[in-house]
Amino acid sequence: MSNYNESAEQVAQATDGYVMQQTMLRIKDPKPSLEFYQNVLGMKLLGKYDFPAMEFTLYFLGYEQELPTGDDRAKAEWVFRRPALIELTHNWGSEKDENFAGYHSGNEDPRGFGHIGISVPDVYAACERFAKYDVEFVKKPDDGSMKGLAFIKDPDGYWIEVLSAEGITDIILAQ
Amino acid sequence: MSNYNESAEQVAQATDGYVMQQTMLRIKDPKPSLEFYQNVLGMKLLGKYDFPAMEFTLYFLGYEQELPTGDDRAKAEWVFRRPALIELTHNWGSEKDENFAGYHSGNEDPRGFGHIGISVPDVYAACERFAKYDVEFVKKPDDGSMKGLAFIKDPDGYWIEVLSAEGITDIILAQ
Repeated sequence: MSNYNESAEQVAQATDGYVMQQTMLRIKDPKPSLEFYQNVLGMKLLGKYDFPAMEFTLYFLGYEQELPTGDDRAKAEWVFRRPALIELTHNWGSEKDENFAGYHSGNEDPRGFGHIGISVPDVYAACERFAKYDVEFVKKPDDGSMKGLAFIKDPDGYWIEVLSAEGITDIILAQ
Repeated sequence: MSNYNESAEQVAQATDGYVMQQTMLRIKDPKPSLEFYQNVLGMKLLGKYDFPAMEFTLYFLGYEQELPTGDDRAKAEWVFRRPALIELTHNWGSEKDENFAGYHSGNEDPRGFGHIGISVPDVYAACERFAKYDVEFVKKPDDGSMKGLAFIKDPDGYWIEVLSAEGITDIILAQ
């Protein structure tokens, strides 16, 4: 990085209004992914945007109390001001391509992205319910030394940490 | 997935209080990463947690107005209830390992995770400032057909979309 330097106040002023808006994951098939993020994790589908010339569709989901309202412009502008959304990118055709190898979770070589994490009131209750949906577990809450913390997989194999503020704090303070 | 079925009300009740809390990215070296996320993107460092037995440190950053207060427990519990944080995982030693190949952005094969995205008031102003920090661009705002939308790289090469609600809405409505 350059020697360009700003005071903390200058940085705060220059980045005022910035929002960590999205985490984008490519998905093979929107059907199981939408079912998972909506029905299992309880997110709302806030926007679906087709790009026919480039043959992909974007789905934005998140934990919002309300759905966007107004015309298409007002709805989309609202979505893109929301923090903490998941953006699922579906490149058309992968869902029916028998040679499609699947997407890479980032947790085997080559590693990089690790996971998204959902903070929940009760990890054990959440995981009991996920099990009823036959969700795949990487780590159940009582596996290993870090009790009360779980990892599940979404339909493409991306890892999702399931944590509670109290439980993860217990783990951190024990280190 | 199983045939386990819940009404929309049951799903909403079971997932009440869920927060999309974190997106975890592995980093080679905390020094340039913290400089980038704090000084360039303007996020605050909200928590730093060492795991000496497993030789890694977690850094949580986000766009919060305040810093956590109280004792270590109160601070950590506050952090893990915040939405939209970035979790940077530093496995000790990579920063001085000359054989370390670097982390995988997910945007070359094998693909998966794509990027995080920051919603900003003015993409052009943001990018002019990023350029002063010698930030690497994947796409400048006027490159290609999608005007007013940029992609930059963080110090590990992860992609960060820089969008404005109005600008991305113009792009979507033009499809």
